[in-house]
Amino acid sequence: MEKFEINILGCGSALPTTKRFNCSQVVNLRDKLYMVDCGEGAQIQFRNMGLNFSRLNHIFLSHLHGDHCFGIFGLLSTLNLLGKSGELVIHAQPDAEKIFRPVLDYFCSGMLYNVKFNSIDPLKNELIFEDKTLKVYSIPLKHKIPTCGFLFEESAKQPHIIRDMVDFYQVPVKQMNEIKNGADFITETGEIVPNYKLTFPAETPKKYAYCSDTMYYEKIIPIIEGIDLLYHEATFCECDAMRARQTKHSTARQAATIAQKAGVKKLLLGHFSARYPSTEKLLLEAKEIFPNTILSDEKTVIPVGND
Amino acid sequence: MEKFEINILGCGSALPTTKRFNCSQVVNLRDKLYMVDCGEGAQIQFRNMGLNFSRLNHIFLSHLHGDHCFGIFGLLSTLNLLGKSGELVIHAQPDAEKIFRPVLDYFCSGMLYNVKFNSIDPLKNELIFEDKTLKVYSIPLKHKIPTCGFLFEESAKQPHIIRDMVDFYQVPVKQMNEIKNGADFITETGEIVPNYKLTFPAETPKKYAYCSDTMYYEKIIPIIEGIDLLYHEATFCECDAMRARQTKHSTARQAATIAQKAGVKKLLLGHFSARYPSTEKLLLEAKEIFPNTILSDEKTVIPVGND
Repeated sequence: MEKFEINILGCGSALPTTKRFNCSQVVNLRDKLYMVDCGEGAQIQFRNMGLNFSRLNHIFLSHLHGDHCFGIFGLLSTLNLLGKSGELVIHAQPDAEKIFRPVLDYFCSGMLYNVKFNSIDPLKNELIFEDKTLKVYSIPLKHKIPTCGFLFEESAKQPHIIRDMVDFYQVPVKQMNEIKNGADFITETGEIVPNYKLTFPAETPKKYAYCSDTMYYEKIIPIIEGIDLLYHEATFCECDAMRARQTKHSTARQAATIAQKAGVKKLLLGHFSARYPSTEKLLLEAKEIFPNTILSDEKTVIPVGND
Repeated sequence: MEKFEINILGCGSALPTTKRFNCSQVVNLRDKLYMVDCGEGAQIQFRNMGLNFSRLNHIFLSHLHGDHCFGIFGLLSTLNLLGKSGELVIHAQPDAEKIFRPVLDYFCSGMLYNVKFNSIDPLKNELIFEDKTLKVYSIPLKHKIPTCGFLFEESAKQPHIIRDMVDFYQVPVKQMNEIKNGADFITETGEIVPNYKLTFPAETPKKYAYCSDTMYYEKIIPIIEGIDLLYHEATFCECDAMRARQTKHSTARQAATIAQKAGVKKLLLGHFSARYPSTEKLLLEAKEIFPNTILSDEKTVIPVGND
């Protein structure tokens, strides 16, 4: 089973508390790290979780509120001190470069690596990044300022070879790639061995969506339909629904309703308001609507899929 | 005894570690708080130490390296969310306003309080701030970029009234201030009661100096002569003296030599390089030269004077 997991660096909302850092996660897909939001102290938690700085080349910012991005200055400085080379890409709205670049130029002049900004449009649901193993799509959300979530989708995997059958038919190594790509095999005697006899299907690619910050917004449902894991903000409980509406955040019940309507496999709550000393109430509230719900907790790792 | 103490929020150097935050301290003088440097996570440690955000109105920045000031964005946002009113003054070099203001304007528009920058010249030893209880002077240091330390000096205190004597001579309440300011008292019968019979002297005002970052620099000695507590950076131990020289930092031995030559009462070391898992070696090295040395440690409070 190939690694696809979510590291929770911080799951608080605007005010950090003695228990919770500001928002930040690291998606680990087959040991490549993708940071999502970067609240103050993200680099500290990154280190506390034993993550490998050299594996980080992409940071995705959902929106430009300080509690989601003030950790970027320290993190980028630290990467430089640790000798990073090559490129780091910040996927964010156009304002990000305008605001962050002068600070980086002042504090991190002579950087050993290149910081590139990939400008994204938070109003569109579109592919914003792709590599061999992963596609990332933006998910327009509804918050006080332009905000988008992110859908992380594993690329389709090649089927697995059935070793015994391949040996039996003496398939040459050089033909193995064609077989993986779906070709049948023709033996020396002209016998056609259909592909399904030589391979068994790969696991279905897994999908993870990060939706924060947002009020209850049904337009995201078709984008996240049936995914393995949905992170949805649950800043408030239903007793503070008025405050949620005013600040354009969600309640735990609203997050669960989205999860239920989208038919996702599992729901992960986070971005908890500092007003709740315990988040158990939020969990119970969500579970009434969507039983397979869990809470984010600092320095925990949550696998995507497989349950 | 009136409160004068140093809260250690962070005492690491450029790279935060799992044990140490970046540099930040809070000077608490009679429950008014003055922050000195503001590395990433300062607001988190501020909260962890149970300090009162509403008591903080001044931040002093020694120099514009990220590990000494990247916490300022989050801290200022948090103060706003907590409903701060009035004014907060950042005492720093002129570049600070140029760099920080656009970020604050973008992320904290509509702030409830006013952020004022007091521009200081790090090359001069001069009075940069004064209120009823405190004077703060800049201390030019020698580092890679313009840097200054800060001397915190309690204002002279009024002498204490000897209650029994004042009662005996029936000094009217309205004359009490004059007595505190040194006046003699003349009784109704014309008898002169000299001031020394009515008062006893206040404690000597205490002094604390913060000197970071700097290489060994004897020019600071006359400024810090005889003070109660000296914080001096000790990024390296003597075995890394070459590295200290290259990076314009100090060794523990050099910090102790400054303390000894300046005849300070106590030395507090900090700004430890991430390369030392234990800082005991730095302490031993300093104590050989200056026995009354202690180490900074996260979330500890160190009184100024009284020992």
